[in-house]
Amino acid sequence: MTTVAAYAAPAAKAPLERTTIERRPVGEFDVLIDIKFAGICHSDIHQAQEGWGEAIFPMVPGHEIAGIVSEVGPGVTKYKVGDRVGVGCFVDSCRECGNCKAGQEQYCVTGGVPTYNGIGKDGEPTYGGYSQNIVVDENYVLRIPDGLSLDVAAPLLCAGITLYSPLKRWNAGPGKKVAILGMGGLGHMGVKIAHALGAEVTVLSQSLRKQEDGLKLGADHYYATSDPKTFQELQGTFDLIVSTVSAPLDFNAYLTLLKTQGALVNVGAPEEPISLNLFSVIGGGKTLAGSMIGSIAETQEMLDFCAAHGIGSEIELIEASEVNTAYERVQSSDVRYRFVIDTATI
Amino acid sequence: MTTVAAYAAPAAKAPLERTTIERRPVGEFDVLIDIKFAGICHSDIHQAQEGWGEAIFPMVPGHEIAGIVSEVGPGVTKYKVGDRVGVGCFVDSCRECGNCKAGQEQYCVTGGVPTYNGIGKDGEPTYGGYSQNIVVDENYVLRIPDGLSLDVAAPLLCAGITLYSPLKRWNAGPGKKVAILGMGGLGHMGVKIAHALGAEVTVLSQSLRKQEDGLKLGADHYYATSDPKTFQELQGTFDLIVSTVSAPLDFNAYLTLLKTQGALVNVGAPEEPISLNLFSVIGGGKTLAGSMIGSIAETQEMLDFCAAHGIGSEIELIEASEVNTAYERVQSSDVRYRFVIDTATI
Repeated sequence: MTTVAAYAAPAAKAPLERTTIERRPVGEFDVLIDIKFAGICHSDIHQAQEGWGEAIFPMVPGHEIAGIVSEVGPGVTKYKVGDRVGVGCFVDSCRECGNCKAGQEQYCVTGGVPTYNGIGKDGEPTYGGYSQNIVVDENYVLRIPDGLSLDVAAPLLCAGITLYSPLKRWNAGPGKKVAILGMGGLGHMGVKIAHALGAEVTVLSQSLRKQEDGLKLGADHYYATSDPKTFQELQGTFDLIVSTVSAPLDFNAYLTLLKTQGALVNVGAPEEPISLNLFSVIGGGKTLAGSMIGSIAETQEMLDFCAAHGIGSEIELIEASEVNTAYERVQSSDVRYRFVIDTATI
Repeated sequence: MTTVAAYAAPAAKAPLERTTIERRPVGEFDVLIDIKFAGICHSDIHQAQEGWGEAIFPMVPGHEIAGIVSEVGPGVTKYKVGDRVGVGCFVDSCRECGNCKAGQEQYCVTGGVPTYNGIGKDGEPTYGGYSQNIVVDENYVLRIPDGLSLDVAAPLLCAGITLYSPLKRWNAGPGKKVAILGMGGLGHMGVKIAHALGAEVTVLSQSLRKQEDGLKLGADHYYATSDPKTFQELQGTFDLIVSTVSAPLDFNAYLTLLKTQGALVNVGAPEEPISLNLFSVIGGGKTLAGSMIGSIAETQEMLDFCAAHGIGSEIELIEASEVNTAYERVQSSDVRYRFVIDTATI
């Protein structure tokens, strides 16, 4: 076991504070990663506040991890010391269920082993990226291509793949009109990736406050959803809408913006059930779908794609001591567009 | 104009009665069809009772029409006198919108011209199949292959295509587990077609009352949704569920029956909005979709497919004078599985 410095929430809703945690010894197939940067995802806050149900404390959040391999187990073949690597939302899975065997580990029927707020295969709680190092089985480690700086790469491990996966599955590309609903940590990645995939990209945001950024990041159009004219003007426009919004929305209204047989895919998750008139999907053969991060293989594909297209996250780099302030600012949507902790400051 | 006998609802919720209507003269591209059989679709009842909003009266329902061509206009090239033909839910469309040009006339942005309870391009109300003949532009007429009897073919024009279209689009076929939710006029067609497509078919019905029929028509399995064990046993089972039910359902529960990335497609339409927890679709990358009848080309494809596989509807043939009783029986789900009017009795 190794003792390492970390930032942890000692209890639900308590401020995060500096502490130490134990990491397991490097096993046969394990990679020890010297963490350089950790992104702050909104779901870190949900979990630290037990917004998604009972959680494990102390909690070291962080599943957008970028760092350098500093040690490998004797059985490791994929990585060597000095490699630039990342870790996303899960660090293991059952490897035996149909989903794992099909290479869809993110949908492991056991729930897999989350990077934090979970129980590892050793029976111990998992601790995330707000710390100085982490030990992960090599099969759940991603390679960060040389072209990508580690700081802007970190958020790709969750925000990037969360948008890349549905954009690919639902055929964003040349000739397709894609709307990204919400212009935050997730949404701004959607704009960049959909644009790089060749789609015509529209941002649908509550206001025009971030319009300039949106257009700079690759959007072709930018509309305010607070303006009722938006819904008239854009009726029947989109092949695909990806919603990153976790606030309540009028889904029936957004479905009218789809073309016939278009799809509205949710990666944001309102806590309350939505009200849906099924005629909204029957009338145009439309689809309301969901998507959750991506598989290990697809996450690697996304990293390679982002490197090839020069895509990183737009970040505000912070010191670890600023994490509680950052949480408050994320909750009031006051971040452009992702906080990333410089873990050297822990 | 030709005067023909028909059964019509004189006003909303009034019983249907024998009357006469006028059919337009056979135009250059028109086909006059001597109607032989007309199916009774649940939506006939919804519309005759103004359950779906204001309607046009007198109303001659019927959009499951099978008959014989008795006259053709001078410009008609596709049909000749004596041909066996059908007419479905629409008899024209704008032919100019993106959907019409893409051969998706059922989603015509103008709404197209419904077979009844609509206004034709001549500005006159349209009247449906509960009558002795109908005049339809040849482009909206379907050919009924010789292998199909006209009486069991009539319901294919709505019920058949309503199921065929989503089963094809969502890849029902060998190796796929497909559930048909509801075992009525729509559902029993779903069982036959999904089976003929090569899928492993499960019926999910409220009770086991129609189990014997279901298995005979091609289902491999049959479960009662009133039994909570069904939901435990079938969790994560299906690639595709097609719901034909228009009663309120717990969609979150049905979504648990899908495999990862499975789809639940609705062709039935509850009048009230449904409550949906978006985590139900996000967690497994699942899809909730809708589908509405099919295009002219796909309807022809369906008829050819049904003829090749010996598929017709299971019907109860009635005289026109029995139509009001039939309506009552449809509303109490007391029909196996489609009433078809012998229009010779009008």
